[in-house]
Amino acid sequence: MSEGVEWALHSCVNLAWMEGQAVTAAKLAAIYGLPAAYLNKQLQALAKAGILTSTSGPRGGFRLAREPDRITLLDVVTAIEGAEDAFRCEQILRNGPSADPEIDYRRTCAISIAMRKAELAWRRELAGQTIADILAQVGRTAPAAASNVRSWFANVRP
Amino acid sequence: MSEGVEWALHSCVNLAWMEGQAVTAAKLAAIYGLPAAYLNKQLQALAKAGILTSTSGPRGGFRLAREPDRITLLDVVTAIEGAEDAFRCEQILRNGPSADPEIDYRRTCAISIAMRKAELAWRRELAGQTIADILAQVGRTAPAAASNVRSWFANVRP
Repeated sequence: MSEGVEWALHSCVNLAWMEGQAVTAAKLAAIYGLPAAYLNKQLQALAKAGILTSTSGPRGGFRLAREPDRITLLDVVTAIEGAEDAFRCEQILRNGPSADPEIDYRRTCAISIAMRKAELAWRRELAGQTIADILAQVGRTAPAAASNVRSWFANVRP
Repeated sequence: MSEGVEWALHSCVNLAWMEGQAVTAAKLAAIYGLPAAYLNKQLQALAKAGILTSTSGPRGGFRLAREPDRITLLDVVTAIEGAEDAFRCEQILRNGPSADPEIDYRRTCAISIAMRKAELAWRRELAGQTIADILAQVGRTAPAAASNVRSWFANVRP
């Protein structure tokens, strides 16, 4: 999994704390010293997936496109990494001694089914947690984080 | 995830069907038309992890090192892909406005914890299924597969 997932998740959390105020890619990158051009690609991917909105102009930047409790971690991960499973069944049974060209082994092979089951367990966990859950958790363990982020964005040069 | 995982899992199933008879990397590759040198690397990784044993000589080759019900899918996946999580927390909070150099954010960051939870759900599924479960499943859905594989290995040139 690319580091872009970590960057995208933290950027969503930071944008949630900015409560609708637009933040540029340059600032979202600078808060953690990330390469802005590369982070911008992740932010564009989030915008394309309908998680962020992007506006141009002097006060433009990125905002969350919907409430934090409507953005799951799976939404963010899928926007960055795509929807494909980590395990990709290449149907090697098609070349084996029991091969049947009529069969889609991605659906019937016991190994493919077992790997898919694990993938679904992973997706289920990520789909069951939202950006709002992360905010609530941080609110309990690091209550100053939200105001620290807001101050940082308010005071950093554009 | 590399295609080596699919190859390794199918090779373990085929070796289980061979019931202790050694099979060379060349044959394990040829049954699906896989590149033998690359499959051999996966088989060596399985041997290193204690899943297979490897013997040399004219009747040498690979065997399962233990019973199929003692080899989980997680064992095989970990042997090929390593034990690291797919999501690697790079602790970008260390560069942020609330950074505390004393904190290991891999343990405390809410995002890292949430991603780890999903990873554990994935591992739990894979740890709950063994090569024996795959054999049982194939026995129900494709009962000729085991004997087809045995015939194929018996008749193929070394």
